Amino acid sequence: MARKELWRSTVRRAHGTSLSSSFVCRRHKSGPYGYTQAKALVYSAHGEPIDVLSLHTHSISPSIPSTSLLLRMLAAPVNPADINQIQGVYPSQPSFTSLLGTSRPSAIGGNEGCFEVVTVGSSVKNFKKGDWVITKRPCFGTWRTHALVDEESTMRIDRQGLSPAQVCTISVNPCTAYRMLKDFVELREDDWWIQNGANSSVGRAAIQLGKLWGLRSINVIRDRPDPAATEVLRSELLELGATHVLTEAELLGRGLRDRVMEWTDAGRQRIKLGLNCVGGKPTAAMVKCLSKGAHLVTYGGMSRQPVQLATGKLIFDDLRFSGFWVSRWAAENAEEKQRTVDDLLAMVRDGSFRDAPYQEIKWNWDVDEQVLKAAVQGTLDGFRGGKSILVTGDT
Amino acid sequence: MARKELWRSTVRRAHGTSLSSSFVCRRHKSGPYGYTQAKALVYSAHGEPIDVLSLHTHSISPSIPSTSLLLRMLAAPVNPADINQIQGVYPSQPSFTSLLGTSRPSAIGGNEGCFEVVTVGSSVKNFKKGDWVITKRPCFGTWRTHALVDEESTMRIDRQGLSPAQVCTISVNPCTAYRMLKDFVELREDDWWIQNGANSSVGRAAIQLGKLWGLRSINVIRDRPDPAATEVLRSELLELGATHVLTEAELLGRGLRDRVMEWTDAGRQRIKLGLNCVGGKPTAAMVKCLSKGAHLVTYGGMSRQPVQLATGKLIFDDLRFSGFWVSRWAAENAEEKQRTVDDLLAMVRDGSFRDAPYQEIKWNWDVDEQVLKAAVQGTLDGFRGGKSILVTGDT
Repeated sequence: MARKELWRSTVRRAHGTSLSSSFVCRRHKSGPYGYTQAKALVYSAHGEPIDVLSLHTHSISPSIPSTSLLLRMLAAPVNPADINQIQGVYPSQPSFTSLLGTSRPSAIGGNEGCFEVVTVGSSVKNFKKGDWVITKRPCFGTWRTHALVDEESTMRIDRQGLSPAQVCTISVNPCTAYRMLKDFVELREDDWWIQNGANSSVGRAAIQLGKLWGLRSINVIRDRPDPAATEVLRSELLELGATHVLTEAELLGRGLRDRVMEWTDAGRQRIKLGLNCVGGKPTAAMVKCLSKGAHLVTYGGMSRQPVQLATGKLIFDDLRFSGFWVSRWAAENAEEKQRTVDDLLAMVRDGSFRDAPYQEIKWNWDVDEQVLKAAVQGTLDGFRGGKSILVTGDT
Repeated sequence: MARKELWRSTVRRAHGTSLSSSFVCRRHKSGPYGYTQAKALVYSAHGEPIDVLSLHTHSISPSIPSTSLLLRMLAAPVNPADINQIQGVYPSQPSFTSLLGTSRPSAIGGNEGCFEVVTVGSSVKNFKKGDWVITKRPCFGTWRTHALVDEESTMRIDRQGLSPAQVCTISVNPCTAYRMLKDFVELREDDWWIQNGANSSVGRAAIQLGKLWGLRSINVIRDRPDPAATEVLRSELLELGATHVLTEAELLGRGLRDRVMEWTDAGRQRIKLGLNCVGGKPTAAMVKCLSKGAHLVTYGGMSRQPVQLATGKLIFDDLRFSGFWVSRWAAENAEEKQRTVDDLLAMVRDGSFRDAPYQEIKWNWDVDEQVLKAAVQGTLDGFRGGKSILVTGDT
């Protein structure tokens, strides 16, 4: 493959990284003979991120192939799917290669990222220095200060009015929410939809998009250990545009049917779409709220329980069940992906779409490996305040 | 409603049914003042058929409304759904009415039937005496010797070369099989599909249609208590056109994956469609055989267990799950229903499509109520040789 050849010819292992931070700081920007000093969070075996990740330093030749771009990472989020990839339990996996010069073949973590173009190959026409790009293919390996890629691997972004953190999180979660609301049933103004995991990044994106498109939503969240925290979250989602917010206890408890009937004019307003990232009983309870002919779209399974479908519901209520995986969708719908991202970023720019809460993890040249690894590992903890985004500073 | 008025004006309670059989025989064909003597298997409360059904005699006026037809039943099957209606566990139910003159409001059992037109209203243009018709709407109440209906309730059949038993069973099970093979995924010649309950009427219809359309099928049957009987059934389905027949034990046992891989050229030939009338574990095992992007269509739930969907299968294998209910489909697709029935009956006529096994229950005027009730009740027994069809003789 062209890309592999390209790596082989231009990436070589870095030496002498034990220099003082200030010296390194100058040195990486223009290393010996113009080599770019780069770092990447790599793994050579599957397991918990904290156990298998390591920060690898290497260097990239200044003479890049004519069709390629040298990118500098600006921001890259840590998504649950990234962790699952490292654990080896995700269906798509980067292959381990020797291209980075690691002692054992390795892969770089991360699938989403916002990069700046720093060098442009001589025959590249569609990108120029200073452009911002996002990654276009899964298993890109975004947790690294620099990347040398062929131009087809990236999608240019109109960076005006946007922060790297906003750009780097747009292509997975908001895209997932956008397509799930658009592609399974035709929702018209005032139509209802329901979701669980409503405070997830996808959930928050769906609430906002649904609201912008004139839809009404019922949003299920897990009860927090502290009831006050539950109420804070409820207010937060209502403020974001949720029509109603239910806790899982309220979903599973008595009186659900009455409440839903009250909200939907005794069922005359139909709940046509359900978005599911939980599985198990809470999903079965959500399915009971769906109207005849509705579609349940599953994009996650946080409870690790299967989705159970009562036969009668399937047959007589004409319910349909599908899964949605944004990676497959993007691979099959490249142009639509670009349009979706552009549309979403326009909403971010004009303030009508807000980022999910996140915490920045600064990645400077001298960042401690443990800081990065802990940020990745922490992503799987329950009830977190927000997603971690690796943001490079002085690299 | 026009139909109710019509009943009210022309149906009256019969008297004097304790006459000798031979006398009744003459009498019912032309009762006093030309009234038609009719019988119907009715129920006034939900429960087991044997407990709640009764044979009710009534009479129908010779002066029928101008837009209506007087029909004589030729044959009507007993389907599991008919029993579920009587039990009160089926989602569509006939309402109990006083129109037949029963002492308590009642409904007539049965949804499918082949009838002969015996009297035609003065303004009816599309039917003539002697035409054969099948019922077009659910909850028709087919278990009766005669029916007075408006012409929109029926569909004319080209009777040439067909028996009433063949005609009366075409609109539910073979239609279900036909639409499930056609309407969910595009199957091309040599494509694979899989089903459980393969020896059901729907299953046998699907095997034959699939074979006629050049498809390849994997068919799952329950293991019979007697292994020899299992082998007889296996041969029968192979002879009908099944490509492979698996027992449930084979489906759930080891080695399934290897066999399926062997049959499908190591998975290069995709299994694009699954038809499910079972639920529970056997269905979960069947789902494992489906290829990426395949569709599972559920039309029954004999195990009374829900369908369980592993989240990963839904998301990453892009499986889709739907239900199919021929009544809803027919109500929404009247013209397509007519085309489907015509197409199926053409296959029956030219011998390319064989009826499912059935046993005739003769319904003469003097038939014992218990015989009819037992035939209905027996439909729910396990491992039966075939469906019961009520066939009228001397009525």
